[in-house]
Amino acid sequence: MIDFITFCNYAGTFAFAISGIRLASAKQFDWFGAYVVGVVTAVGGGTVRDILLNATPFWMEEPAYLIVSALALLFVIVFRKYVIHLNNTFFIFDAIGLGLFVVSGIHKTLDFGLPMWTAIVMGTITGSFGGMMRDTLINEVPLIFRKDIYALTCVLGGFIYYICMKLSVSILVTQLVTASTVLTARLLAVKYHISVPVLKGEE
Amino acid sequence: MIDFITFCNYAGTFAFAISGIRLASAKQFDWFGAYVVGVVTAVGGGTVRDILLNATPFWMEEPAYLIVSALALLFVIVFRKYVIHLNNTFFIFDAIGLGLFVVSGIHKTLDFGLPMWTAIVMGTITGSFGGMMRDTLINEVPLIFRKDIYALTCVLGGFIYYICMKLSVSILVTQLVTASTVLTARLLAVKYHISVPVLKGEE
Amino acid sequence: MIDFITFCNYAGTFAFAISGIRLASAKQFDWFGAYVVGVVTAVGGGTVRDILLNATPFWMEEPAYLIVSALALLFVIVFRKYVIHLNNTFFIFDAIGLGLFVVSGIHKTLDFGLPMWTAIVMGTITGSFGGMMRDTLINEVPLIFRKDIYALTCVLGGFIYYICMKLSVSILVTQLVTASTVLTARLLAVKYHISVPVLKGEE
Repeated sequence: MIDFITFCNYAGTFAFAISGIRLASAKQFDWFGAYVVGVVTAVGGGTVRDILLNATPFWMEEPAYLIVSALALLFVIVFRKYVIHLNNTFFIFDAIGLGLFVVSGIHKTLDFGLPMWTAIVMGTITGSFGGMMRDTLINEVPLIFRKDIYALTCVLGGFIYYICMKLSVSILVTQLVTASTVLTARLLAVKYHISVPVLKGEE
Repeated sequence: MIDFITFCNYAGTFAFAISGIRLASAKQFDWFGAYVVGVVTAVGGGTVRDILLNATPFWMEEPAYLIVSALALLFVIVFRKYVIHLNNTFFIFDAIGLGLFVVSGIHKTLDFGLPMWTAIVMGTITGSFGGMMRDTLINEVPLIFRKDIYALTCVLGGFIYYICMKLSVSILVTQLVTASTVLTARLLAVKYHISVPVLKGEE
Repeated sequence: MIDFITFCNYAGTFAFAISGIRLASAKQFDWFGAYVVGVVTAVGGGTVRDILLNATPFWMEEPAYLIVSALALLFVIVFRKYVIHLNNTFFIFDAIGLGLFVVSGIHKTLDFGLPMWTAIVMGTITGSFGGMMRDTLINEVPLIFRKDIYALTCVLGGFIYYICMKLSVSILVTQLVTASTVLTARLLAVKYHISVPVLKGEE
């Protein structure tokens, strides 16, 4: 079980890094710059979570995340022409990663003795701030706040986690149900173009 | 007295959040994205202060700040057509919030045993970095560095705080005088369009 | 020796601040805004390092860095017309500062008991994130990821540091060799326009 979750975690990191690297390449970043954007996309959310929790950022003690991001760069360079055909695969990985990142954000925050509502916020930050930092770095208005439902699926996952806890569901099942909820919500949002309404301006 | 200050603090949070939400709406953010920008504007400066002080960010232990920001979003959605007529009201709240944020930044930094000059810097960060992060998120050059006096009123407030302390003024009076100074300086700066000179480029 | 390194450190801070202030002036920032961008450029990388290490940011305990940045602002204001003729001088200072920042990032991270690979990453962050934050603040795509070799010279310096340690070279010599490597690599990269290849997009 642990191995399967670890595999999904790295697959999510890979997919997040790919999304950063591809967007950087559209802005003429060099290889190293694209790598930095990929890393920020993949580990940015968890890093903000760990800084807010006053914990040592997770990637500083485990090199796998930077290595997986380097593999993502290599992958984009070598298979450039085919990458676009793998969009659906990346999207599935990305959605799986999102679900797992949300779970890890909630779990770690509760471990630090903070209340459930803070944990839901931190799960959302873990899942969505990497993409927000990516878009800031490549000098775009953050996409995740304008298209389909993204960050809100993280909040939804948080409520499911809370309900499972209230119902005394075991921790493993709680986490699987939460991650699956985020994954499913994300797939449905993109398939049916479900969006949060745009906030209309004053004029 | 405490109740009055608490009220002003939430009014300031409300006004800061409104400014973020309104600017996000001009960029076609969805409701949730606008909410995030509102929250970042309202709590961003204090969060940077707390991270620099190695303290748990204030909003993680007290849900009121996120709730007030949610009310600000609701307010903009429901009263969209009238919001523009309330510009002066928001501006007053914003200036009151600025004064209180500066005081809270200075007070907390001194509590951590850091020197006065650091406290003045932290007061300025608490007051101005939320607006700076707002403008970065919506992909604009930070407004607070280009129009009327903003961040500099925070520095002025810091000096007033220092002088009051040197004169052995009681802490409550020191804080009220500081907040009032920032508020007054900000009102005067906007009324008379007092600006810091623009730094001319080389060509 | 210490005095010489301290001098270089402040010269590097001065050069980093100058680069931030000059780019801010091209965007019509006011004096105070330009100062903030200068400070962020000069101390931003080290601040991110210290936050990740859970340490009190270095400039909060030693006012010299903010004072040197203020002198940089004064310098740009007073000698505006001549600044452009000093480009080569600033560039040398900037490259010296880069080398010293990398060394300080590696040294401090090892002091915290973290592994060598983390230290290399932190040295790179210390050297390059100030410039990245500068470009984000002035609303540009980060220059350091698009032109000549910049961040990668920091990584190279990290490997040299590692090799020197493996060879049991004394700490002082290790640090001087590392800083000189970064400095030399940077000078050569700019002189011969050595760049990391641009990552080509998919279309």
